[in-house]
Amino acid sequence: MTTQQLHEQILQKKSFLCVGLDPDLTKMPPHLLETEDPIFEFNKAIIDATQDLAVGYKPNTAFFEAYGIKGWMSLQKTINYINENFPEQFTIADAKRGDIGNTSSMYAKAFFEDLNFDSVTVAPYMGKDSVEPFLAFENKHTIMLALTSNEGAFDFQTLTTNGTELYKQVLETSKTWKNSENLMYVVGATKAEYFADIRKIVPDSFLLVPGIGAQGGSLSEVCKYGMNDKVGLLVNSARAIIYASKGTDFAEKAREEALKVQQEMEEILNSRFQV
Amino acid sequence: MTTQQLHEQILQKKSFLCVGLDPDLTKMPPHLLETEDPIFEFNKAIIDATQDLAVGYKPNTAFFEAYGIKGWMSLQKTINYINENFPEQFTIADAKRGDIGNTSSMYAKAFFEDLNFDSVTVAPYMGKDSVEPFLAFENKHTIMLALTSNEGAFDFQTLTTNGTELYKQVLETSKTWKNSENLMYVVGATKAEYFADIRKIVPDSFLLVPGIGAQGGSLSEVCKYGMNDKVGLLVNSARAIIYASKGTDFAEKAREEALKVQQEMEEILNSRFQV
Repeated sequence: MTTQQLHEQILQKKSFLCVGLDPDLTKMPPHLLETEDPIFEFNKAIIDATQDLAVGYKPNTAFFEAYGIKGWMSLQKTINYINENFPEQFTIADAKRGDIGNTSSMYAKAFFEDLNFDSVTVAPYMGKDSVEPFLAFENKHTIMLALTSNEGAFDFQTLTTNGTELYKQVLETSKTWKNSENLMYVVGATKAEYFADIRKIVPDSFLLVPGIGAQGGSLSEVCKYGMNDKVGLLVNSARAIIYASKGTDFAEKAREEALKVQQEMEEILNSRFQV
Repeated sequence: MTTQQLHEQILQKKSFLCVGLDPDLTKMPPHLLETEDPIFEFNKAIIDATQDLAVGYKPNTAFFEAYGIKGWMSLQKTINYINENFPEQFTIADAKRGDIGNTSSMYAKAFFEDLNFDSVTVAPYMGKDSVEPFLAFENKHTIMLALTSNEGAFDFQTLTTNGTELYKQVLETSKTWKNSENLMYVVGATKAEYFADIRKIVPDSFLLVPGIGAQGGSLSEVCKYGMNDKVGLLVNSARAIIYASKGTDFAEKAREEALKVQQEMEEILNSRFQV
């Protein structure tokens, strides 16, 4: 998928919501545990209930790997289900990978070819040759960690180096890499005031924004500082939507929560773009 | 496994060699491709041929994930094979994971519980709460990236921050984390002269050292600066051993290469510890 197609979908749905799929057997409705593949059944119900309100889905690979081969099969079924039924959705493998060049090539193959995701998240610590193998894939997107939503972000990401914070250095440096137009960045919603500075460095890039909902970030603040003239934001919410209810009405409740976020997004888009 | 058990195995085998399992269908002997599970057959043959010369095995998860569910099944079979037949081996899931707390907990569950590895590699970029969930597992080890063996290591890891290089800051900070005694660190062999400074910060920790062999690092240099009085090194070699031959003699040739490294290690251990 191209960023232009993503942009068009955002305008059409009046939404830049990405739903995070973090399927945890201990948190999902008990009646699903009796099915053959609870993780897939859970994801499918959430996707069906929210697909007209969301522009993307972000399965978090950890929540599948924790269940071994069965979990990996659920991941495969989930991405296949989205690609077959809702091909307009932007899909993100939230995998936070990154390794030396020949290894990163294998990860890129895993997520872009074998599983056919539109994008994958990567960590920047190992530098250029750990990210460029992902960037080599046409119409695929590499979403690199810049400033994350957790407390530990302040351990290293905000340290000052060369007169600027590390995460800004990461943004600057990544712009010089081959095929850097295929980069997007993770910037946590819990740090809304940082978006203004970030937009000075990467004015045109899409930013994937976790931290709305359970982690407490503010959507309006993020948009105030982070939105560009092509919207340029994908705001992720997982727990607040997918675990809105533990009952048989979980999908309905998930839709209600997703609708609240979408409506807030629609208001923001209307006031900003007069659409 | 405890570090004490690892240390005893090193003295007994006179080896601190870890064999990297990076199974690539395009590089392995063609006759294996006709078997039902070429990746597992390849790994099994390499393990059988080298297990008395090595103290650990490091499957690189990317090379399994690239083949999807079938690859993940090969990974499961490989770790089960080692645990059942050679339980003395120190096993490393080279996965370079790391995410916010609840996600890292799921990764820890995947590698420490579901697959039952002794250790897993993690990336430090997201800080304390992305690593501590791994450290919470008793007698399991978390091997954090400090200074890697690739060219991209110089993009961010060696930037100066607070008057010291980032990788040194990573080492220092990690010592303050809960259960930090379960930490080991990745330090690339291609940067042997850095080991002296690293040992000033983490004198007692085990260091996992990639970059010997195909990547060109020198074993004697690494030992000169990096060895401590408990050895404290696990030196990894993958391609130079596992792809020593593409013929039906690949396991035999792998053993020959492993033996060369083990003999060099034995000499070093003898001269250093008069064992």
